[in-house]
Amino acid sequence: MATAPRIKPSERIFNFGAGPATMPVEVLEKAKGELVNWHEAGMSVMEMSHRGKEFVAIAAEAEADLRKLAAIPASHKVLFLQGGATMQFSAVPMNLLRGGKRADFVNTGEWSKKAIAEAGKYCEARVVASSEDRNFTYVPKQSTWKRSPDAAYLHICSNETIGGVEYHWTPDTGEVPLVADMSSHILSRPLDVARYGLIYAGAQKNIGPAGLVVVIVREDLIGHALPDTPNVLDYRLQSDADSMLNTPPTFSLYLAGLTFKWLLERGGLAGIEQVNIRKAALLYGYLDSQDFYSNPVAKEDRSRMNVPFTLRDASLDAAFLAEAEARGLSQLKGHRSVGGMRASIYNAMPLEGVEALVAFMEEFRKKRG
Amino acid sequence: MATAPRIKPSERIFNFGAGPATMPVEVLEKAKGELVNWHEAGMSVMEMSHRGKEFVAIAAEAEADLRKLAAIPASHKVLFLQGGATMQFSAVPMNLLRGGKRADFVNTGEWSKKAIAEAGKYCEARVVASSEDRNFTYVPKQSTWKRSPDAAYLHICSNETIGGVEYHWTPDTGEVPLVADMSSHILSRPLDVARYGLIYAGAQKNIGPAGLVVVIVREDLIGHALPDTPNVLDYRLQSDADSMLNTPPTFSLYLAGLTFKWLLERGGLAGIEQVNIRKAALLYGYLDSQDFYSNPVAKEDRSRMNVPFTLRDASLDAAFLAEAEARGLSQLKGHRSVGGMRASIYNAMPLEGVEALVAFMEEFRKKRG
Repeated sequence: MATAPRIKPSERIFNFGAGPATMPVEVLEKAKGELVNWHEAGMSVMEMSHRGKEFVAIAAEAEADLRKLAAIPASHKVLFLQGGATMQFSAVPMNLLRGGKRADFVNTGEWSKKAIAEAGKYCEARVVASSEDRNFTYVPKQSTWKRSPDAAYLHICSNETIGGVEYHWTPDTGEVPLVADMSSHILSRPLDVARYGLIYAGAQKNIGPAGLVVVIVREDLIGHALPDTPNVLDYRLQSDADSMLNTPPTFSLYLAGLTFKWLLERGGLAGIEQVNIRKAALLYGYLDSQDFYSNPVAKEDRSRMNVPFTLRDASLDAAFLAEAEARGLSQLKGHRSVGGMRASIYNAMPLEGVEALVAFMEEFRKKRG
Repeated sequence: MATAPRIKPSERIFNFGAGPATMPVEVLEKAKGELVNWHEAGMSVMEMSHRGKEFVAIAAEAEADLRKLAAIPASHKVLFLQGGATMQFSAVPMNLLRGGKRADFVNTGEWSKKAIAEAGKYCEARVVASSEDRNFTYVPKQSTWKRSPDAAYLHICSNETIGGVEYHWTPDTGEVPLVADMSSHILSRPLDVARYGLIYAGAQKNIGPAGLVVVIVREDLIGHALPDTPNVLDYRLQSDADSMLNTPPTFSLYLAGLTFKWLLERGGLAGIEQVNIRKAALLYGYLDSQDFYSNPVAKEDRSRMNVPFTLRDASLDAAFLAEAEARGLSQLKGHRSVGGMRASIYNAMPLEGVEALVAFMEEFRKKRG
């Protein structure tokens, strides 16, 4: 077992977990500083009425900052809800079928499959393209999609957290609303919101702590929820109430707001994208430079956020993980459904974290390869 | 306008808000201390995988402590979910109708009415007793309830946050499962869980921050969700997954766990009940001792947690609120649907807060009465 000193000098580890995931330390330090007494209000953000002037301002500022970051047009509403992306697997069909009987899905991996299975409760969920034939290691080209003429919407998972597959392009679905689960890469790069009917993203990767989901939806699509839709899942009711039909997850929303400001201070999405490109290039470049480690994803579809890789000799996995952990390189174990390793390198992972990982990987390879 | 010094010497106000509400300062200080680096793990609780050993232990300990506090029998499952009590207004009928066509409701105020309206989407929601005839100022005696022979369950709101009406007794519904929305008084007094089929409570009063709801449900009642029930609302699926069918609101659950420990250190529910009885006796005793302020609720049904009161001369309301605020007595304004004042005196409100409030009220009365 390695007894080398931890690579990271501070008390904090480099956390490569897929989510809940590492957060910007500057955001955590700020939250810590005002945890018991926010801005001399004499109370924590957690203790504020969601209808009081302090919290209403926090929520409004979070929305304004997110709109600025992602250049969200006035045609689209922003909702801050609960239940994560999994709740949206139900809420999206309940709200967006609008009398339709089917929706189209592109299947690129585990998270696509979950969305498809859940939508199947409410409509015919048609898989119009799939990369299952090659173990979900690529994104099917749009020219191969067999779309339905009468789909209420077309759904993609634009970054597969488990498989490490990302759309680096935006599908063109014409009049059919494009719906994207962007949980694990939202805010990692600029995007053209106007091209989407609906975007949703659980917070616990690039936005903030678990317990919050962001929904960005074109306003003309809402107002047609199925009769059995629970009130809190009805986009129209939540939109009319500024996401406060019921008590919102106030502290999570506050932390999301701090994260949006952190991104704005770093040049917004164009700024963070440059850092993300460097981090991904460093790690994939190393993976492709030797044959002790490998990543199976088609080069043009590799995720900048989630980098799965395997060791040539899987019997070394446990030693790899233990030695990495001893260096403060943590949560590198791959998803239980896939095995191997996975480095999630979200916005909050600094370049130094990826440098430390690559240095450790090379050292391990030299010793064991 | 009062220029008197704030009654409370510290930086923290006394926060009488109904929810999200004041939390134990000891819990907040502990969370602050470990916010950036929990127990030398090198990360915040917010950054932990919900499937990692650290967080699994936090969640298991929270459940064990809650079971100990409320003496929850093995017959009942504990679920930590998202969406607050409002989400349960939908989830309860979706899970508990079990093929039945109707459920019985006792209507004691605004929160009862919301539960009734939402259940009406899924079944015939029958009001078997109501205190609307006297503006929701009492709890109808069980002898007056006109119960249905075939109700799937009977639902009460055991503490009405807005009206300040509390059940100080447990209904006997025989074979029909008793369901209670205990959001605003759970953990304020001992309770006999075995007498309930299901208890639910949004966290943001006596448990922790908003974004978490606790469901305690008798196991034999689950497993019969309606076909359209979203996965994350299906008690059977969540129970089988230890409330981790999807990513739980990890930080909120951690804070709930700290609050459970805070209660255990204070003698558990029997211990905190004694403090709550003293606080309520002090405030109601004062309200009944003069005629400048008054509370409209029948004495035997008054809530120990939420104390609404009015000034004889409503034109003084604004001055009362402003002067109270200047003394660090905050969020005393009554709910917008009722008007007047409301002092919420949950577990985390110390006796000193109620003493300060009563002292201020008497001072204001002498000056303006």
